Order: sequence, then structure tokens, then C-alpha cells
Amino acid sequence: MRHSAEHVLHQAMEKLYPGLLAAMGPATAEGFYFDFDPRGQKISETDFPKIEAEMRQIIKADLPIVRREISFSEAQKLFKHNPYKLEWLNNIKKKGEKAIVYATGKDFIDLCAGPHVTSTGKIGPFKLLSIAGAYWHGDEKKPMLTRIYGTCFATQKELKHYLWQQEEAKKRDHRLLGQKLELFFISNAVGQGLPIILPKGATIIRIIQQYNRQLQESLGYQEIMTPHVGLKSLWQTSGHWQLYRELMYEPMKIENKDYLLKPMNCPFHILAYKHKTRSYKELPLKFAEYASVYRLEKSGELNGLLRVRGLMQDDAHIFCEEKDLKSVIWEVIDLCQTHYRHLGIKDYQMRLSLRDPQKKKKYLGDDQLWLLAEQALEKALKEKKINYYLAAGEAAFYGPKIDPIVKDSLGREWQIGTVQLDFMLPERFQLGYIDQSGKEKKPVLVHRAPLGSFERLLGILTEYYGGAFPLWLAPIQVRIIPIAERHLTFAKSLKTKLTNLRVDIDERNETMQKKIKEAEEQKIPYMLIIGDREVSQQKLAVRQRGEKNLGEMSVNQFFRRLKLEIEEKLVI
Amino acid sequence: MRHSAEHVLHQAMEKLYPGLLAAMGPATAEGFYFDFDPRGQKISETDFPKIEAEMRQIIKADLPIVRREISFSEAQKLFKHNPYKLEWLNNIKKKGEKAIVYATGKDFIDLCAGPHVTSTGKIGPFKLLSIAGAYWHGDEKKPMLTRIYGTCFATQKELKHYLWQQEEAKKRDHRLLGQKLELFFISNAVGQGLPIILPKGATIIRIIQQYNRQLQESLGYQEIMTPHVGLKSLWQTSGHWQLYRELMYEPMKIENKDYLLKPMNCPFHILAYKHKTRSYKELPLKFAEYASVYRLEKSGELNGLLRVRGLMQDDAHIFCEEKDLKSVIWEVIDLCQTHYRHLGIKDYQMRLSLRDPQKKKKYLGDDQLWLLAEQALEKALKEKKINYYLAAGEAAFYGPKIDPIVKDSLGREWQIGTVQLDFMLPERFQLGYIDQSGKEKKPVLVHRAPLGSFERLLGILTEYYGGAFPLWLAPIQVRIIPIAERHLTFAKSLKTKLTNLRVDIDERNETMQKKIKEAEEQKIPYMLIIGDREVSQQKLAVRQRGEKNLGEMSVNQFFRRLKLEIEEKLVI
Repeated sequence: MRHSAEHVLHQAMEKLYPGLLAAMGPATAEGFYFDFDPRGQKISETDFPKIEAEMRQIIKADLPIVRREISFSEAQKLFKHNPYKLEWLNNIKKKGEKAIVYATGKDFIDLCAGPHVTSTGKIGPFKLLSIAGAYWHGDEKKPMLTRIYGTCFATQKELKHYLWQQEEAKKRDHRLLGQKLELFFISNAVGQGLPIILPKGATIIRIIQQYNRQLQESLGYQEIMTPHVGLKSLWQTSGHWQLYRELMYEPMKIENKDYLLKPMNCPFHILAYKHKTRSYKELPLKFAEYASVYRLEKSGELNGLLRVRGLMQDDAHIFCEEKDLKSVIWEVIDLCQTHYRHLGIKDYQMRLSLRDPQKKKKYLGDDQLWLLAEQALEKALKEKKINYYLAAGEAAFYGPKIDPIVKDSLGREWQIGTVQLDFMLPERFQLGYIDQSGKEKKPVLVHRAPLGSFERLLGILTEYYGGAFPLWLAPIQVRIIPIAERHLTFAKSLKTKLTNLRVDIDERNETMQKKIKEAEEQKIPYMLIIGDREVSQQKLAVRQRGEKNLGEMSVNQFFRRLKLEIEEKLVI
Repeated sequence: MRHSAEHVLHQAMEKLYPGLLAAMGPATAEGFYFDFDPRGQKISETDFPKIEAEMRQIIKADLPIVRREISFSEAQKLFKHNPYKLEWLNNIKKKGEKAIVYATGKDFIDLCAGPHVTSTGKIGPFKLLSIAGAYWHGDEKKPMLTRIYGTCFATQKELKHYLWQQEEAKKRDHRLLGQKLELFFISNAVGQGLPIILPKGATIIRIIQQYNRQLQESLGYQEIMTPHVGLKSLWQTSGHWQLYRELMYEPMKIENKDYLLKPMNCPFHILAYKHKTRSYKELPLKFAEYASVYRLEKSGELNGLLRVRGLMQDDAHIFCEEKDLKSVIWEVIDLCQTHYRHLGIKDYQMRLSLRDPQKKKKYLGDDQLWLLAEQALEKALKEKKINYYLAAGEAAFYGPKIDPIVKDSLGREWQIGTVQLDFMLPERFQLGYIDQSGKEKKPVLVHRAPLGSFERLLGILTEYYGGAFPLWLAPIQVRIIPIAERHLTFAKSLKTKLTNLRVDIDERNETMQKKIKEAEEQKIPYMLIIGDREVSQQKLAVRQRGEKNLGEMSVNQFFRRLKLEIEEKLVI
């Protein structure tokens, strides 16, 4: 249906803009788009009502949409004025495919493999969304085309929900909020996908990291520090060079040897394990590191903090005996759940990510080890009575994994952490330990990062909370707003009293109303308005984010309230 | 004198090992060495008494050492049996230098530019130290030679002191202690100069980092996070590419653009500053980051943790008004001194590192800016009445600096932190701020790292304390030693009582004596021996590192003692 709506857009455009050349366009997961070469004509979003009206005409006419297979010479004649279609036609021919066209009524025909609805009347409620520039084939050297985005749904209700969701998503867009709240920025001078996290963003990350560290210390994790580069041979042993290379930065030569920027920490943690003979008494051995890793995501897939080329993980590798595997996995799942609960994330599901059995060459190891590993993870989930769903082809190249998938209030899904089971790398790096009977055995390796990456998490939490972070995470927790200059002394002494809180004072020479408005825009959880009354009575006039006036409180009352809110990690 | 002693060694060797070929050898800062090609003969340190006896003979004979300039053909005849000397002679000839030889008595002559003492009797007390393999010209593909190290001094007392110092230094060698105490290791699989810091080393670093963070937060530093790679163009703007390139890793190409691994954080912190319009109200603005930077030190200069190819700095950049420069510098010097005091480092001096006026091309900027910057630092030191000494040629390429130089108990000197003043980069990156009168002005930039790098600091502290770290830094602060298995329950309950301390239990089935010995070897500050008496009386038998028996204490007494020692950062 969306594909047919895209044809209708195309047809409407040809009628409204004679001489325009239609290039290409697909249906997408959420709608459709089409790229036009306007040949000098101006098209903007203000033209949408006109285009939509034309589209409605075509839909109302309920024109039949008919598939036809034609000869290449006929097709070449049909599209002789359109170099884009001719290029496309040529590609179809080269691939040995057939020339298929779809006609809509009598006046419109396009090269298209389909499928389509049988007539335009079957297209549901639609809407054009936006306009953007796009290069032909995404190639900077090719001409710039005009891309029109739209969507359609079976019912008006669904369309409305989608448009509301889009509107809400725009308000929560972490790239916009990141700028407005000064959390981070991405600079062309640094390079694509390499964010600089500003003090407020770094505060949120540091607090989560400290919290994460405390939890992990209590579980016996031991932190180590490993370099960001290592010899290529290390990545050949691990298999990254063979199976993960397209996501790795180019090698750097030092004294005739190739070094690589690390995309993962595994080989280093494995070397730290291997550094001495290990005994079963030391297992499970848990090496943790807050380390930045570098992955060369395609530039077209980069997206603010959500997809970057450098990210800091809450990474750890657990080396354990095979017999302890289930309890290790359970402990990690518990850790994930504790984290999500404290971060206020309620709605999530576990995805069990398996090997794609059709593409075994993308993975290390043999069928038997994969079966073992996949069964072990599934068993752990089942016995712990955790809801999960299967996803073939989503495994890491060295093993299957459990990926928690979070749903936000707009119904959007985000992958956060990961728990990966690995029989392969202990084999390839020839790891061992001495078991209770004095025999050498091979440990099993669990790779895990309950939070995934801190950059991505910051992006997700920003969208999740629309920038209104829970108190324990808010970069500034309290803003003191003195009404006049004579209230500044009290404001400053108040600030020193609020120890262990992140407090600032808005000292500017602005109206109280403006200061409150800006504190609201900055999503600061609490505002303390200081005027004559507050100074003389030594009381606080407390406002909460979201235009809530909490009335008067003593400093102690206020302090206790915030302490509780922070300790309990409340989401208000 | 050391150079002459080296000739005497050479002469003695030729007498004792006929057919041996002498390659080359210099005097060094601490002695001398000489490389021999033994041509199949075995030479080991057990031969030293024999060689030393022969050397003493030559010295006793007080043979005259005489310089002669000879023709190249004569020299070629003289050394015709020695390909090493012939190669050397060739090089001298190519460079257009003269062939100079020194004769010792009648039987010995060597190609040498001198200078020397006038006779062998003037050579003071000497000692041969060690033997090692060394490639000719340091090239793996050239033959392996035998290098003999020795030293000599004017007096027996100086020689003795030096030998004692060497012996002590060996005991404190952080590379050996690093292995013994499991602080770190360097693996050939990772690559040279890229240490992996093990849990115990990482604990020390983390504690120092947390302490450093707390101090800096109280001074208004704001942490940011920046990537480890950035576009080459960024490093061209900063001047690193032009003046620091030999210490930088090779560029990596991404989508036709060159990216570089960062050797410093400056350009990123500068971009974070530049990210929005700054007002004088925000200055001094202090961006801090615990970031790993990568520098390609020569492989011959790598040395454990002291000289590496990847290091994590306690870095920060302070952007300030020129008028505030002195107070900013003072605050940083105070911060350095606070750090060193808390780390137990008493003996240090400030080195004022200036530009080498002979090599102006190695630096950015013009004479006037350098004069300004150098004078500003010197004035700050003088007015604060701080002892300092000048060192021309030690400045950074963008500005002069103050480098604290620490002296340890063996009299060895270490550079720890750095405070650098920079007028250049604000100019090159076109930084500005709005001053009180609304005009745009250029800020001054102070680069500073009071601790330098955490890796290096860990190495220095290990040598400084010989591995016996003060309690607040010790990776394990208390070891509980149950005498028999029946004392384990008490030991475990004791461990849970000692909250916020790093405690372990030696559960092994070994004698108490052995357990104590190993705890001493591990330099663990406190040992608690748990036997029947301790269990029944609920008392602790406390031993302190260094075989000190502190007698009985209650758990509370012990806890209070340690709390005080940690809070005061005592060095015991």
C-alpha cells in the first residue's frame, strides 16, 4: 500500500511539475519516499497541500494498478527521456532480470518490481512529511535530487498515532536536546561519529559509571586497564580481522608491524587472564573495564549518540567453569535488571540472538559448539522464567547472546546491553585453568555490557526522559533563583549548605519569570526562589520541574526530600 | 676518565681473548660500555675478576695515553683485520672528519675522537657491572655482539655509593616489582610500550584518580569526554602535525580523510571551549579529562611504565583572562604541591623549561610571545617564592612550562607533572571571549597535568616506595591469616566487619609462617593472625608490614587506627 502511495505521489508530481524527472523511491518500514530531479523547479514543504490534493484526486478516482512485463526495447522507448530510469533499466538487464512496469490508470506508468494494491482506492489515509536533498545513489559526485517523504496507514487512527509519535519523538530528539541542554556536540573538525561530551553530559555518564562500578565491585568484578591499540596479529588470533574487519579502522604501521585501534576489549582481557596459570579457585574471574572502543560504522548510519564511531562500554569478561555457566548468566541478567530498574526503565524484553544458520561463514567455530552455546543461553532464560524471543542472525561472530530490548513511552525499541556466551575465543587463545582434580581444563567466556555504551545510553535516556532526567542523574539538580541582587548573599550561603548536591545560582540581572522559564527549559528538577520573605523567614520557596509549586519548606525538609529522591533513584 | 677506563677494558680484553674483535663503545652518564665480537669465545660475568685484574695491571703501569692524527690509508692498514673499525673509519671519511687514534703505552691503539686522561694511572676506582647482548648499530639484522658495562669514579667512596644505589634501585625496579606484586605486565602479543594494568595496579590508579577528581571538582574543574581519534586537519591547525609528528602514530584513512590517534587532548578541549560564545563571567574555564593519549616513543627508549606508547593523563586545560594568569598558575602550583604532599613526596624542585633560542624552528609563534610567556611563568614562580632552575630547550612547542622534578631516596630524579603556558593555540584556533566592556578578547591557555600520566606515576611510586605503598594506596590493605581451618568462620565474619577496607583472606592450607612471609613479600600493610586465642577473646593479633608485631587490638581499635592512617594519607 505504501509502495502504491509512492506511485501516486510520483504521478501527482509529474502532473504538477511538467518536465520534472522521477528518479527512484522505495517503501520503507514507516512510509515511503521518492527522489525527483526537479530540473530547476522549486519544490518545498509549502507545496505539500497542493501535492496532497492532487494525490487525493488520484486515490478518489480508484484507478486500477496493473502489472505488465515488457521487452527491454519497449521499456527503453517508454523511458527514453529519463536518464535515471534508463540507468536503472540497464542495471536490471545486466542482472538478467525482467523489465516490469506498473501502470496506474491510463496516464501513468513506472518501472517497478511491485507488488502493489490492485487500485488506488485501496490506499489508506496518507500524509507527506518532509523534504530533503539526496544524492543519486548516495554519491556526492552525482546530482543532488529532491527527496519527498510520506507515509500512509490502513486507518486514520493509525496515521494520527504515527504523526503524534513523530511529533513527540522530535521533541525528545537527543540531538536537539543534546544541544539545548549542552550535553554533547559533534564537530566536523573532529570527524563524523566522534562526539565530544560536554560537562553536563559527562556528569550523567560519570554518575552512572560510579553507580555501575559500585554494583560490580560488590559482585567481585576486578577492574583492569588496557591500551586502545594492539598488534594486528592479536586480532587475527581472535578472528576479528577475518570476520569483523569492515567495522575496524585501518591498520597503523609501527616499526614494520601493523597495529589496530581496538573495536572490542576481548583480546586484552584474555591476555590478562592468560598472564598466569589460573586455578578453579579463582573462577569465576571477572575483569571489568570502562574502555573506549572504535568501530567504523558507515557514515550513512551514524546518528547522534545512538550510532557513533567511538564508544565507551561498561565492559567485562567473565571466565568461568562450564558447570557454573548458568549461575554466571543469571547473575549477569540480575545485574542488567537491577540497572534498568534503577534507571527507571520498565518495559523491556530479552532477545536471544542466534547464529544465522544460512550464513555459517560469518561465524567462528563448528555446529556442535554453537548448538551447545545457544542451548545453554536458552536454558538459562527458561529456567529463570524470563520472557524472550528468538532472532536468528543477530549473534556475535564468536557466540550467541541475550540482548535486552527496551521500549519507550512512544513504543520505540532500543537495544541497550548485551550478554554474550563464547566457547570460541578460549579455544583460539588456548586458555586453561587447573580444576579441582589437578587437570587442565578450558574455561568458558562470557562477554557482557549491561549498559552497552555510555554514549548510546546517554542518547537513549535523553530520548526516554525527554531531557528531564531523574534527580540522581540530573547534571544540575537545584537552581537557586535570587529575585534581586540583595538576595544573592542568602543564595550563596544556601548553596554551601546544600552539600553533595549539584546546585547553581542564576545570578543574572533578569526577571524571576525569565529565570524560571529558562530553568524549566533546562529541565532542572528543583528551583528555589529567593526573595525578601525567604531571606527574612529563612525558608525556601520550592518549585519542581513541570511548573509545580511545592510551597514553603525549611532547608532541612528540602534536603531530606532530595536525599530520599536520590537514594531511591525515584522517577518523578 | 670513564672513556679512558673503557679503553683499558678494551686493551685488557684483547690481551685475554686473542682473536676477539672490538667493535665500539662510549662513556655514558653513569659509566661506560664496550661491544665486542668474541668470535666464538665465551665471555660471562664470572670472567669479570680476571678481566678486572688485567685492567688493574694496566692502570698500575700508568701508561701514557697519547692522541695522534693519522692518514686514512694508515688507519685502514692499522685496523685491516677489524671490519667494525673499517666501517667506522669509512663513516668518518664520508663525514669529512679526521682519523684520530689514541695509543695507550706501546701495545694498544684505538680509533677514537677522545678526549682522555693523560695516563692510565689517572683512572679512579672502577668496576665491571654486567654483560648483555647488543646488535651492531642496534640493528636486528646485524651480528649480535657482547656488551660489557662498567663504571669508574674519582674516589672509592663515590664508587661504593653508586654500587649501593644500583643495588637498591634493582630491588625497587618497578618492572620486577610490577610483576611480583601483579601490578601490570607488558606483552609481546599486544606490542611494545603498551602495558596492561592488572587489578592491583588499576586499584592504585583508580584511588589516585578519585582523589584527584575530588580536589579538582572543589576547584571548579569540569570534566569532559573526547574521542581518541580526530581528523588530521585538526592537528595541522594545532601545529602538532608540523612540530610533533615524529611522536604521532600513522594516519588512518576513513572515507578518504586522514584521522590521527591523539597524542594530546588540547585540540578537543579547545573545540569544547569554542563550541559556544564565551563570556568573561565563565573564565577561568577549566576542562578536565582522564584521557589516554598515544605517543610513538622510540622502541629503544621504552622503559616499563616510565616510558610507554599509551598513557592516561590527569589532563586539564584552563582558559583564562590574561590578567588572571598569575592566580591561575598559582592555583595549579598549589594543586601540584597538595598532590605531592599527599603522595608522600617531599623532595622536589620546579624546573622552568624554556625555548631553545638556537632552534626556534622547533616552536610555534614569534619571539615576543615567547618572551611574554616565559616572563609570566618566571614572575609567577618568583612572586610565590618558589625555588626553580632554568632549562633551555625543554619547553613544549607551543609554550614554556614549569615541570616539578622529584628526587627519591636514592637521589634519582623523576619528572612528574607539568604546567604549560600557551599564547599560541588560542591564536591558531581563533579563540575569543566577550570581556566586561563587551569587546572580544583572546583568552590565554594553561595546559596542566600535576600527576603527568597515571602509568608513569604508578611506576615512579612503585620505585619510590619499593612497592610498600602507603595504606590509602595499597591494593590490599589488610590480609587476614587464619592459622587453621577452624578459624576461617571468624576470619570471614571479620572481613565483612572491615567495611570500606580492601581486605583478603589467605585461606590456603599453608603454615602461618609461610603465609606471613608471603604477605610481607606482597608488602601488605597489615596482617591479622587469627588463632584459637583471637577467636575466643574476639581480639586481633595485628602485624604491620616490616615484621612489626603490634600486639593485641579490638576490632574497633584496629579500624580506627586504619581509618586515621588512610584519611591522613600517612606514610609509615
